[in-house]
Amino acid sequence: MSKNTIPYKIYLEENEMPKAWYNLRADMKNKPAPLLNPGTGLPLTAEELEAVFCKELVAQELDNDTPLIDIPLEIRDFYKMYRPSPLVRAYCLEEKLKTPAKIYYKFEGNNTSGSHKLNSAIAQAYYAKGQGLKGVTTETGAGQWGTALSMACSYLDLDCKVYMVKVSYEQKPFRREVMRTYGASVVPSPSETTQVGRQILERHPGTTGSLGCAISEAVEAAASEPGYRYVLGSVLNQVLLHQSVIGLEAKAAMDKYGIKPDMIIGCAGGGSNLGGLIAPFMGEKLRGEADYQIVAVEPASCPSFTRGTYAYDFCDTGHICPLAKMYTLGSDFIPSANHAGGLRFHGMSSILSQLYHDGYMEAVSVEQNSVFEAAEQFARVEGILPAPESAHAIRAAIDEAIRCKETGEEKTILFGLTGTGYFDLVAYEKFHNGEMSDEIPDDEMIARSVAKLPKVE
Amino acid sequence: MSKNTIPYKIYLEENEMPKAWYNLRADMKNKPAPLLNPGTGLPLTAEELEAVFCKELVAQELDNDTPLIDIPLEIRDFYKMYRPSPLVRAYCLEEKLKTPAKIYYKFEGNNTSGSHKLNSAIAQAYYAKGQGLKGVTTETGAGQWGTALSMACSYLDLDCKVYMVKVSYEQKPFRREVMRTYGASVVPSPSETTQVGRQILERHPGTTGSLGCAISEAVEAAASEPGYRYVLGSVLNQVLLHQSVIGLEAKAAMDKYGIKPDMIIGCAGGGSNLGGLIAPFMGEKLRGEADYQIVAVEPASCPSFTRGTYAYDFCDTGHICPLAKMYTLGSDFIPSANHAGGLRFHGMSSILSQLYHDGYMEAVSVEQNSVFEAAEQFARVEGILPAPESAHAIRAAIDEAIRCKETGEEKTILFGLTGTGYFDLVAYEKFHNGEMSDEIPDDEMIARSVAKLPKVE
Repeated sequence: MSKNTIPYKIYLEENEMPKAWYNLRADMKNKPAPLLNPGTGLPLTAEELEAVFCKELVAQELDNDTPLIDIPLEIRDFYKMYRPSPLVRAYCLEEKLKTPAKIYYKFEGNNTSGSHKLNSAIAQAYYAKGQGLKGVTTETGAGQWGTALSMACSYLDLDCKVYMVKVSYEQKPFRREVMRTYGASVVPSPSETTQVGRQILERHPGTTGSLGCAISEAVEAAASEPGYRYVLGSVLNQVLLHQSVIGLEAKAAMDKYGIKPDMIIGCAGGGSNLGGLIAPFMGEKLRGEADYQIVAVEPASCPSFTRGTYAYDFCDTGHICPLAKMYTLGSDFIPSANHAGGLRFHGMSSILSQLYHDGYMEAVSVEQNSVFEAAEQFARVEGILPAPESAHAIRAAIDEAIRCKETGEEKTILFGLTGTGYFDLVAYEKFHNGEMSDEIPDDEMIARSVAKLPKVE
Repeated sequence: MSKNTIPYKIYLEENEMPKAWYNLRADMKNKPAPLLNPGTGLPLTAEELEAVFCKELVAQELDNDTPLIDIPLEIRDFYKMYRPSPLVRAYCLEEKLKTPAKIYYKFEGNNTSGSHKLNSAIAQAYYAKGQGLKGVTTETGAGQWGTALSMACSYLDLDCKVYMVKVSYEQKPFRREVMRTYGASVVPSPSETTQVGRQILERHPGTTGSLGCAISEAVEAAASEPGYRYVLGSVLNQVLLHQSVIGLEAKAAMDKYGIKPDMIIGCAGGGSNLGGLIAPFMGEKLRGEADYQIVAVEPASCPSFTRGTYAYDFCDTGHICPLAKMYTLGSDFIPSANHAGGLRFHGMSSILSQLYHDGYMEAVSVEQNSVFEAAEQFARVEGILPAPESAHAIRAAIDEAIRCKETGEEKTILFGLTGTGYFDLVAYEKFHNGEMSDEIPDDEMIARSVAKLPKVE
């Protein structure tokens, strides 16, 4: 099709928006491994999980069979405030690169949380509200998830307590202020307000915190206060379920114009965006109905897929969370300075880990300066200032488009543009000033961290 | 119509987007007064204006007769990257206020400049490029206009030099960094790089600058460097012309669903957003085809319409710009601390000034704390964190919706949501901390400033 027939942006009509989430697990022959109780080594029961998570979300977490799960009307109404997100044809980028490839991106940044995180935040807050809870606790690193959850809780009049990694709390006062605007209370982590926080502070005085540590604190806070539950913005099966709305919309928009992607690219931290974007495409692939090349892009400084081990591991530093089977660098792994805060998690979604293990998708890692080069190049021609996380996918998409130029292939590329970089200008400034590091972990460091993985039968 | 028939967001199709700007002046019986040469007191000729402005833009500036001016294809293609902007039905705000009023807003913030400014930036950059120029100069206060122009220039490969009011340059390093990402050079104003800057620095050492002063510097820089012209983000007739795309889209979207607004509300600084939003509606009003209540909202700290004088005045502090007839507080007027940087200009568009003078529109002024209260209330239910400028319109819309609740009127209200507040979190923080001032100028201060207006026959 020509430039004239495919618009720059494809928006679905309201009545074309998904009415059910797609549960990828239903089509997986090898199901993702269950979460284990670290004490007993046995799969966690619904009852055990319900001490920490909301009841309905536990049901979704454990459901490996139901392919379509209805999106409640209230959530669909909330989605209508900022969705459908546009599927954009990157005409200007294609022209700049002089590539025969056709590039599309699904842009999730047009909402105040600045990313796709809101898709799951509203779902989790909705089920918490439905259960009659007073509030929820969570952690946030870069701040997108905390902002998204604050927005969802404010909308539903739920209390929201966010443990924010201390270094982000200090370096990103604006993110904190957005959360305050939405009425959330934001606590720098590690803090004195939890037992695990106090322990970490005692062991590592002056620490600036980590995502794994903030998770520990948020889980403890939820478990110890009546009427509260913990919610998480990535990694879990339920989150990938909610995020399937990204892929469902993208596929519906492409189908409408008869477009079939050859390659689908997404950045991968905990896996929520990638898992959501690829869901319906991967479903077709699993059912043998179509084939797609699916690529996860991770930072070279935190390479769980490309250099990690597929094993059971803790999701948090304080080791109070369940064990998940995943590609991991070890829960003690501390990535080197990296400005894509959302991609600094040591592990990876169990669903994506299983799919990667089974050969249904590939992974590449990219270095930080090349990511910001891609970000800037993209911003200048497509107009959108991307989040550093999203720019990982841009890097891979541009690389593929350049390869197509060499080979003459007219590949159709779809990538996920998860968010905007308006709160990441410190990172852009470092990049402009040539102060950005490309440091990556050496093999010994990863081996040391992986050696401490918990022993599981 | 019911909630079921009118979607949350109305997006036009690409082929429904405006192909021509609407020139409101063509339908005005009393044309806006011409710009005068401050030396001779005579109307400026095209030739005189072309020393500072691009040729085609001068033609647009002086054209009081042509109702429709074609939007060049290249600009329409650029518009497609971030337009059409959504016309949003504020269902959630209505529900929260329990008002029978129907509230709509045209949201211009879904682009990296964060506001409507891009609509004119791309047009002005396009004509500069077409004239074979090397680059353009401009000033920026809050930073939206500078960002928008940087984006447009980067897209067209034009050099872009931005004089940024020093206090903003220092307090908003992130805005500066976005402009750098788009390749612009950003100079804090007043600077040593211009004669007028050096004079101001000598007279007021340690000054943190003003918009009027930055304008003087940018004009001097353009006039003294071959291959450069000056461009301006508001006030001028040409800018209102380009911004008519906002109103044209809004009206097309409303017509599509048979919606007729009773009241149209916009914030007013230099008038670019308000003038653009109301254009086609005001056109119908001027032609006697329909009636609308049209309201300009300005900050109580910079009340050009509500407390200014309708007279010829300088547009800049350095008095090197032409004289414009407008509602003005005097070019020496310095508004008290106010976080809506885009609304701190001492004057107002000549077009809007004439329309206000002739009774075609009203104006109200609102105080800062009440503006941020409205902003927060809006953010919590509608999800979008508004720019402080835009929140002036929100305040007025909420006030009207509350009045409707008391009277039972089912008024249809349309307001302009010009942008997002992601770079205004310092202001939100002050508001949260109760440190925001409601200081307004006293009569004596305004009288003193207005007494210095230039004498014009």
